[in-house]
Amino acid sequence: MNMRILKLNFNSAINQFRNIIDSKLRDVYLDGPDNMVETANFVMSAKGKRIRPILTMLSCDALGGKIDDVVNVATAIELLHNFTLVHDDIMDQDNLRHGQPTVHKKWDISTAVLTGDSLLWLSLDMLKKTKIKREDIILHFIDAIKLVCEGQAYDKMFENKEYVSIKDYEKMISMKTGYMIGLCSHLGSICAKADKDVQKNMKEYGLEIGKAYQIQDDFMEVYSSEEVMKKSLTSDIELNKKTYMVCLAYDMDPEGYRGLIKSDFSSTEKIVLLRQYFEETKIKERAMDEINQSFNKAKQILNNIDFKKNYLLELNSFLKNRGN
Amino acid sequence: MNMRILKLNFNSAINQFRNIIDSKLRDVYLDGPDNMVETANFVMSAKGKRIRPILTMLSCDALGGKIDDVVNVATAIELLHNFTLVHDDIMDQDNLRHGQPTVHKKWDISTAVLTGDSLLWLSLDMLKKTKIKREDIILHFIDAIKLVCEGQAYDKMFENKEYVSIKDYEKMISMKTGYMIGLCSHLGSICAKADKDVQKNMKEYGLEIGKAYQIQDDFMEVYSSEEVMKKSLTSDIELNKKTYMVCLAYDMDPEGYRGLIKSDFSSTEKIVLLRQYFEETKIKERAMDEINQSFNKAKQILNNIDFKKNYLLELNSFLKNRGN
Repeated sequence: MNMRILKLNFNSAINQFRNIIDSKLRDVYLDGPDNMVETANFVMSAKGKRIRPILTMLSCDALGGKIDDVVNVATAIELLHNFTLVHDDIMDQDNLRHGQPTVHKKWDISTAVLTGDSLLWLSLDMLKKTKIKREDIILHFIDAIKLVCEGQAYDKMFENKEYVSIKDYEKMISMKTGYMIGLCSHLGSICAKADKDVQKNMKEYGLEIGKAYQIQDDFMEVYSSEEVMKKSLTSDIELNKKTYMVCLAYDMDPEGYRGLIKSDFSSTEKIVLLRQYFEETKIKERAMDEINQSFNKAKQILNNIDFKKNYLLELNSFLKNRGN
Repeated sequence: MNMRILKLNFNSAINQFRNIIDSKLRDVYLDGPDNMVETANFVMSAKGKRIRPILTMLSCDALGGKIDDVVNVATAIELLHNFTLVHDDIMDQDNLRHGQPTVHKKWDISTAVLTGDSLLWLSLDMLKKTKIKREDIILHFIDAIKLVCEGQAYDKMFENKEYVSIKDYEKMISMKTGYMIGLCSHLGSICAKADKDVQKNMKEYGLEIGKAYQIQDDFMEVYSSEEVMKKSLTSDIELNKKTYMVCLAYDMDPEGYRGLIKSDFSSTEKIVLLRQYFEETKIKERAMDEINQSFNKAKQILNNIDFKKNYLLELNSFLKNRGN
């Protein structure tokens, strides 16, 4: 298949999958206490990128599985992701998410706590509908809940530390982001009834994508705009959030970086200064190298898997270019 | 077996089961991010009554099951219960729980959100260790998470309503409290490999106990002391929380009750006035009748089950007398 047709197929597949997920999410919670139905649907109707369920569905489809066999798992993953967003936004005091106010901002903290909890059980409830390897899938899911919670705990802990090693940072993001993206490709392959060794490779592939995705997110928090990101960009600086680039800066030039970050400039001014600083110190370049390296590793893993449709490579390019 | 020996056996069983649960909870989370391990253990080490895991273990034991087969499920239920307490305390702005400060009071709201989340996954993680009917048990557990969340949503919704019917109130408590207590006796019977009809009766029994337990709790919030309850008693009044007695008062004497509750007295003074008011209007008596009725129904259900050890009847009396 030539690249143009591959790309056409890929674009049509992800649009189709996104529509399926959006429509599942619209129907997932219509009957319950009005206050909970309203807020959960407010979160689910936001224009999220749906990267995780799309990856789950693409993984199953690429391995010859049926969409009907994966769609509930894909929806459950998106719900689990939304649970983490609502609770993380409380903790990070973020006011904007997917271009709309966060739940604790629009309502209040109590409502946001309960809305997050409701998204978590909706996610578990969705798994009940899975027919293929349900118990296995639920057990992997429980591990994912553990890791996102622990990853978030490390993230909060690191806010109060000045120095966090690159190794500790990478461990944190693999827990908070990597495992869940690994879960997408992994569960997608289980739903396609793939062999154990393919499942293992698909999980590895997702973990690499997840790592690239998170460092790219860090990168975009500095080099993108609030319009593109559809969320506020200054809270990371205010909370002293550790990112790949911040950890590198403390490693290479603690004095210089500390001077900049402790200066009296506003958060908005600091972003401009940080952009310049990361360029001068080549930290920007190193972060980009790291992102590319992970995408390349992911590609190598894909090259060793025998797919029925091989548009996961297209997903790589799609994700790689999302910041541009 | 005469009643004295039955009581001795019962007391020794619940003490033994409480010790087993306390010791399981001490070991459940030792390895993880320091900040999360510290707060989760702070919650788990509180001197809770452990009624839910004790009921779970007694149910299994009474039906001839092995303690080893039920202990992980019992621990999981206690962890799930603790998850709801930590998040509910944020929502209700309660500062005291089990005689110690609540997590959001001792640390902050972010920490409490994350601690609640961690208790939820610890609870799910504990279920992974179950060997008997694991998938079934997990599915019932997911239903319980749904119902406690929705029950809490109704509870919050009712704070903003002046009038809530007894029927709606009973629906709310059956979701928030009843189902989880029903889950204890139900899962205990599953772990004992009981027949389906016994499982069904055991669930019904737990639901009745759960109803009695919650109305009793409402009762004790007015007629007990903070020393006995080990939590603050005024927040229910401040939040306009609906209780069985409040719903009865709005039903029978809306003008009179409204006058009392909207008066300028402090919350502490209002408790004293409420005690007097509920006695004069015989609302106190009706609440006590309702509690006794549910305990009696629970007893009737028990009488129809063929137990190996029949100390669940003792548990009835134990729970019935807890407020005295």
